[in-house]
Amino acid sequence: MEKPFDIVIHGGVVITVNDDSDIIADGLICIRGNRLERIDTCSGTAPLPPAVKTIDARGMIVLPGLVNTHTHTPMTLFRGLADDLPLQQWLEEHIFPAESRHIHPEAVEIGALLACAEMILSGTTTCCDGYFLEDCVARAVLQSGMRAVLGQGVIDMPAPGVPDAADNIAAAERFIARWRNASSRVQPSVFCHAPYTCSSTTLQAAKKSADKAGVRFQIHAAETRTEKERLAEGHSSPVKVLDRLGLLDAGTLLVHCVWLDEGDVEIIAESGAAVAHCPESNMKLASGIAPVIELLAAGVPVGLGTDGCASNNNLDLLQEMDTAAKLHKVHRMDPTAADAATVLRMATSTAATAVGLGKEIGSLAFGKKADLILLDARQPHLIPMYHPISQVVYAAKGSDVHTSIIDGRVVMENRRLSTLNLEQILDRANELGRKIRRTDA
Amino acid sequence: MEKPFDIVIHGGVVITVNDDSDIIADGLICIRGNRLERIDTCSGTAPLPPAVKTIDARGMIVLPGLVNTHTHTPMTLFRGLADDLPLQQWLEEHIFPAESRHIHPEAVEIGALLACAEMILSGTTTCCDGYFLEDCVARAVLQSGMRAVLGQGVIDMPAPGVPDAADNIAAAERFIARWRNASSRVQPSVFCHAPYTCSSTTLQAAKKSADKAGVRFQIHAAETRTEKERLAEGHSSPVKVLDRLGLLDAGTLLVHCVWLDEGDVEIIAESGAAVAHCPESNMKLASGIAPVIELLAAGVPVGLGTDGCASNNNLDLLQEMDTAAKLHKVHRMDPTAADAATVLRMATSTAATAVGLGKEIGSLAFGKKADLILLDARQPHLIPMYHPISQVVYAAKGSDVHTSIIDGRVVMENRRLSTLNLEQILDRANELGRKIRRTDA
Repeated sequence: MEKPFDIVIHGGVVITVNDDSDIIADGLICIRGNRLERIDTCSGTAPLPPAVKTIDARGMIVLPGLVNTHTHTPMTLFRGLADDLPLQQWLEEHIFPAESRHIHPEAVEIGALLACAEMILSGTTTCCDGYFLEDCVARAVLQSGMRAVLGQGVIDMPAPGVPDAADNIAAAERFIARWRNASSRVQPSVFCHAPYTCSSTTLQAAKKSADKAGVRFQIHAAETRTEKERLAEGHSSPVKVLDRLGLLDAGTLLVHCVWLDEGDVEIIAESGAAVAHCPESNMKLASGIAPVIELLAAGVPVGLGTDGCASNNNLDLLQEMDTAAKLHKVHRMDPTAADAATVLRMATSTAATAVGLGKEIGSLAFGKKADLILLDARQPHLIPMYHPISQVVYAAKGSDVHTSIIDGRVVMENRRLSTLNLEQILDRANELGRKIRRTDA
Repeated sequence: MEKPFDIVIHGGVVITVNDDSDIIADGLICIRGNRLERIDTCSGTAPLPPAVKTIDARGMIVLPGLVNTHTHTPMTLFRGLADDLPLQQWLEEHIFPAESRHIHPEAVEIGALLACAEMILSGTTTCCDGYFLEDCVARAVLQSGMRAVLGQGVIDMPAPGVPDAADNIAAAERFIARWRNASSRVQPSVFCHAPYTCSSTTLQAAKKSADKAGVRFQIHAAETRTEKERLAEGHSSPVKVLDRLGLLDAGTLLVHCVWLDEGDVEIIAESGAAVAHCPESNMKLASGIAPVIELLAAGVPVGLGTDGCASNNNLDLLQEMDTAAKLHKVHRMDPTAADAATVLRMATSTAATAVGLGKEIGSLAFGKKADLILLDARQPHLIPMYHPISQVVYAAKGSDVHTSIIDGRVVMENRRLSTLNLEQILDRANELGRKIRRTDA
């Protein structure tokens, strides 16, 4: 007799986001270990395959777990600390002082745990993060059950955990060495802060370290007008600067790409680099609107990201999809731009490609890792349902996520986290918040 | 001995949105009948005032119920029926045919009940609606416990319930007569569809009827570029056309106002008319971005609206606040634009003014109607909390609303509606949805 599956999910509307964009009205998903072994239609009369755990998904939408291509998870601790301010004032008077005073290993771990709780509860199963003391983020991710690409920060100034900037590359290399074989759920990475905070030497050394280890190289690029204008004294663009330094290839993830010049889209596309698009953060900080439609048309894998909580202020990718679709429609004055299916890919399959995990996650297909979420569609704002993808992108919210499975493990069910002690995390985050508030200007 | 209050709410963070923008860290709110009788700070040692019902709001944010200044509630039935299409194709091939086939009294009532359920569950306590067969909307509103300004539609073509367009003004007048004294929670109104679908004669007659009865006159105006270009053959603007017809005064609510010409902001401001701003709908249909900052600076009461579910696709005003704030920041390239406090007013006090109910609702102040909501702030995406208003605008979502009180009555508590049979509404809406799907092109 066949060995029972570990999990069988039946009866939901399954949005596979596979190559054929299949949607299965009455779906059957079978999981063994951490892999998807069967994606099928329920046959009305046939008995369900035997399983250790059977999930009745009738009335639910089942889709791949969402992939957040850009986060700074510990910054949950600065959520709403300073809003509605000019960028420099926000950074220099609030965020940088708070980071220098309050970012220590325990804070990073608590902030990251808080972020993981929020992400799981709003449908994200994988994030691509960049911060300092990233070991603490890795421990939080492992504990939460999430999957992540984690970049140790590199910047040419003293940073939490790296008091001597001259040690920044070595610190990143040590991080990679510690985590590259520690867990199949954690992929180490290098996160260079930006072309204007790292010298060319640092940038090239960091990229070399990433390449040598075969890990992702992440970098903020072309986020603000000021950055663009300063960087090459107006004679070039951040993308061209990075290109000339040899930093653009299929292992690179460029974050933001708001201020692209003529030819930049083509340079990115030819290099094979991917882009993380953070529309809500770019809107809130008034950075601008990235030319995402052009990037996608040129074949660049563009994934959605929320950015950190200091500039969004939440990690809800379902809301980010809605905003992205609407923003690009009005920006181009074209209601057909950024259609729902494209935007859903930007939070699933294309996002997975962007963070270097396209073969493993991002769609519901045979052999892929079992990372998936179930949305409770029996709610007033999700009824009637004519087009499931439209419903997910334009009507659903993070709180509709009922169940989350990552790497074959149920990490959240009926909105209860099985991996984390939420009450304790909230208490500890509140305690840190009280300290941060006391020292904020 | 003093008669006990009906409801006492204690321990929450109270955002009053009153004239002084008071925020009370440990608030006490006392309700008698349908009125707020006391808004105060909890005194640590004093016993709570006696009450029929006492609500422990520790860990919650308490704020005025949200006011949605523009809805077409029955259009919940067309949620996601057709997305990502050019405007004319969307309207002519999907929405208009669906309306002509499926809009009958029962459908309007079910659609409106579904909308009321969604609105209450996401924090809206008052909506300003415009549709046809508006009597059915009124019955749904009454049943739900909500407060509403309800406009019977006027359009120069056959419409549901008004087969002969020549009868449109008389039908609106009959609607007003039936509802003007029926309930303190329902204010009848006249809703003229638009300057391009109503003749000047109709527009003036409709405004006259509204003025005679002392009710609100609502009209879509300057929504799309096409409307602006067609209306006066390029020689004028929709606002100037309406102004010349004598339709602009303090009793008028102009919906959208995206395509304003030079001088239009001043004309609106001088007239005393209010504006309903629907950013998500304007984004999704790629209509454009209304000059809201200029309107507010000129003193125009601008309230937020979600518009109908065919163009949004939900009725979540908490999300609409977030989008509005971020959209205007990036549109003006100014992170200080549309700050959180301003945007919160656009969904509460200013919105109440815009729909003609500024004296009764929109803030938590002595003597006002007891319309308020409690948000559960003990959730990962709402912690830490440095600035309650920022948290509400940038981090909260509709699903965070724990309790809703309208007109002194608890209509939802712990996310359970006390006024509506939600399961039955969802079933009936699904049934209508199946019929609509069968006939959609």
